[in-house]
Amino acid sequence: MSSSYDFDLIVIGTGPAGCSAALEAARLGLRVAAIERKECIAGVSIHKGTITSKLLRRTILNLQCARQNPLLRQLFPSTKNMRMTDLLSEVESVIAQESQSVTWKLGRSGVTLINGLATFVDSHTILVTSDFDTQYLRGKMFLIAPGSIPHKPDTIPFDSETILDSEELMQMNTVPASLIVVGGGIIGTEYANMFAALGVKTTLIDRHNELLPFVDREIVGILLQAMGDLGVTIRLGVNVDSVHKNPEGHNEARLSNEESLSAQIVLVCSGRRGNTKRLNLDRAGVEMDEHGFIKHDGSFKTHASHIYAAGDVVAFPALASTAMKQGRQALHHLLGVQETYNIQHIPYALYTIPEVSMVGATEEELVRDHIPYQVGRAKFYDTLTGEIRQDSRGMLKLVFRPDTFELLSIHAIGSSAAEIIHVGHAVMELGGTLEYFKETVFNYPTLAECYRTAALNGLRKVTSGPARG
Amino acid sequence: MSSSYDFDLIVIGTGPAGCSAALEAARLGLRVAAIERKECIAGVSIHKGTITSKLLRRTILNLQCARQNPLLRQLFPSTKNMRMTDLLSEVESVIAQESQSVTWKLGRSGVTLINGLATFVDSHTILVTSDFDTQYLRGKMFLIAPGSIPHKPDTIPFDSETILDSEELMQMNTVPASLIVVGGGIIGTEYANMFAALGVKTTLIDRHNELLPFVDREIVGILLQAMGDLGVTIRLGVNVDSVHKNPEGHNEARLSNEESLSAQIVLVCSGRRGNTKRLNLDRAGVEMDEHGFIKHDGSFKTHASHIYAAGDVVAFPALASTAMKQGRQALHHLLGVQETYNIQHIPYALYTIPEVSMVGATEEELVRDHIPYQVGRAKFYDTLTGEIRQDSRGMLKLVFRPDTFELLSIHAIGSSAAEIIHVGHAVMELGGTLEYFKETVFNYPTLAECYRTAALNGLRKVTSGPARG
Repeated sequence: MSSSYDFDLIVIGTGPAGCSAALEAARLGLRVAAIERKECIAGVSIHKGTITSKLLRRTILNLQCARQNPLLRQLFPSTKNMRMTDLLSEVESVIAQESQSVTWKLGRSGVTLINGLATFVDSHTILVTSDFDTQYLRGKMFLIAPGSIPHKPDTIPFDSETILDSEELMQMNTVPASLIVVGGGIIGTEYANMFAALGVKTTLIDRHNELLPFVDREIVGILLQAMGDLGVTIRLGVNVDSVHKNPEGHNEARLSNEESLSAQIVLVCSGRRGNTKRLNLDRAGVEMDEHGFIKHDGSFKTHASHIYAAGDVVAFPALASTAMKQGRQALHHLLGVQETYNIQHIPYALYTIPEVSMVGATEEELVRDHIPYQVGRAKFYDTLTGEIRQDSRGMLKLVFRPDTFELLSIHAIGSSAAEIIHVGHAVMELGGTLEYFKETVFNYPTLAECYRTAALNGLRKVTSGPARG
Repeated sequence: MSSSYDFDLIVIGTGPAGCSAALEAARLGLRVAAIERKECIAGVSIHKGTITSKLLRRTILNLQCARQNPLLRQLFPSTKNMRMTDLLSEVESVIAQESQSVTWKLGRSGVTLINGLATFVDSHTILVTSDFDTQYLRGKMFLIAPGSIPHKPDTIPFDSETILDSEELMQMNTVPASLIVVGGGIIGTEYANMFAALGVKTTLIDRHNELLPFVDREIVGILLQAMGDLGVTIRLGVNVDSVHKNPEGHNEARLSNEESLSAQIVLVCSGRRGNTKRLNLDRAGVEMDEHGFIKHDGSFKTHASHIYAAGDVVAFPALASTAMKQGRQALHHLLGVQETYNIQHIPYALYTIPEVSMVGATEEELVRDHIPYQVGRAKFYDTLTGEIRQDSRGMLKLVFRPDTFELLSIHAIGSSAAEIIHVGHAVMELGGTLEYFKETVFNYPTLAECYRTAALNGLRKVTSGPARG
């Protein structure tokens, strides 16, 4: 039976979801092929998204730390008209490195890497087209992980020069004097922060009344203050009705509240769409929603029972970190393999300036669900590391059950928030309580010490000890 | 009975050990006094040691990250003749802040803070002398946490200008052209690294044949390579027999191997001594060793059963992080209070460049104790964060039981090593295994991802799964 197929599993896409699924399938002994366009090995995130964004952010943080330093402050170069390629000089080499690393891992694991564009012919057959040849491949099972692409609203006249989507960032050549970011999701907020930190007059526009609704409101409040410090202008609850060039050659955005804003560059980050157009998924019996995202049963199974989907193409939460997990989970479901260890909570990070990270429910969700809780807080500034880094807004917030001291969630904002959340996440997953933070030893000085400070702060608020079973 | 005493507990010293003990005692309802010289609130670490060292390190890391950045590289100032006060411009304000913070915490908790120098009159009475007055205080119990002072070997002619101990660092006015560091313990190695990173021609001399014997040998090997990159010359297994000025006005150190080395500055970091000279501990029945460290029973009880000691004055391991824990532990032993949660392993950090941190046994100790183990490694460079930071030597090493996948120890070297060790430490303490790292979600990009990479690396080496009970 299996011999009528070229491969046990064909994975479409080698981003975080596809790559982790392919590696795990190979480890489990399957004959695996991974299909990817040559220039995209390791997935779209690496090429246009995450790496560019993270390298730009790192350069900006380096510039900021140089600016903080009295010795370097006078020497600080103006960012006016700075070329984007100067800010992102390492981008090519880092992308090449990541791409090689994925190719090497897949190769070492025995995954057959096939370069080309995949399209379904029938539910078990794909046609792979490259510059050099085309081939038909038959697979017993499929994992679809082609990622997502930026949504380009019809109302906005993209021109690849001054009106750009988030993947065309490098087209802007030099750091602009002014920027309008349309869309206050993760990507939009990250870029608005970064360019404002570079000294760009930045406006962030979002049609919702709240920014980042999945993030704890207190943390968003601090983030908004920090964005204010950086000089970001924010307009919430308004749509961009149209954009056109004004007589000075700038872009003028007309908003639904009748306001008119102009800027050199308009960067549109208004959501993404499943990268599914060319896959001909209807021939395979796989269904999509109106945004091109693949529908699945909650366990990543599509409407075709031998085809699973994972990563950005299943829409939520569209982060590289969760995509890796989804890829493995989808594969395990597909094969009926029991997971060795199930984590209960997924952490998230926003690489804004300052960084935001969280795991578990927000206060708003706990109130809605009638779950009693108490909160312990620590400011990064209460630690020597926070003081040395001059991280005046940094905060760690532990949300816990007042009766058992168990952790319900952790919310952090400030430098290294995305790293330190993992200390508390491990404690949450492994059943530790606030007492672990109280009694453990933290290296001095570290930001991790905030866990102890926040735990002591929380414990002071609850008079009696935990109810012991 | 209690009324014949002025205080239930008198704490001598307000460094990490004294402060944490005083706060905990106040929380438990005791009448507590803390004695400290006014200029030393928060302990000696803050004034001369840790803060100066950590601020200097931060400035150097900022300079390094500016140097890494192509935009800033050309602007990079020469460190030649740079003034130490320029490198350490924030030191006064940070010290003031930390000192105020301790004063505030003690005050809020109801601890009576008494400024002055303490000396025992009898086993329950101390005399406190300040510039303004003297007073006798009677305490039912005592916790002694006066910290330590640098050891000044007789063979070295300290001059407070060019031959200095580690607390006289600021006396050197400008960054020297050349430096000899005598003593390769934590402090000596940290300073040798820092000055070499500043471009100072640095030699580190230690009388032992091995540097940092309590650190995993593989990690020390990487550290030595990094020190080589920085240009540190290392001489092990030799003593400094004498130091004198040569005709050029430099210091010439004559070594026991007949070698002669010269440098502008000699920085002596050859161990520390208990800061006990003025305490008249013999009148209280407290015994010390020949280095002024207080002898105790392993639970911090001295030879006088109502007097406990903690922190650097009990010698090992003389870190601020453990001192805090020791202060609380000593108090709990003194009062017979059961600890709510006992951690099994104490993490350590060396703020060298690159940073080193560890928790649990070294490979050498496991071999010695015939404990079977396996190792999983991840290079920081295998993560996007490591690549972005250009951390080419960074590594995380997980040592685990091959049968159960339980963690035996964690060793890290590289940027943020002191922070990320706490993720693994929580997993160790709370009974997690390598499978936690394999199955959890790490924010992308983070260095914490190294835990997954290292776990997968380790798991690949052990063919069968864990023996499940």
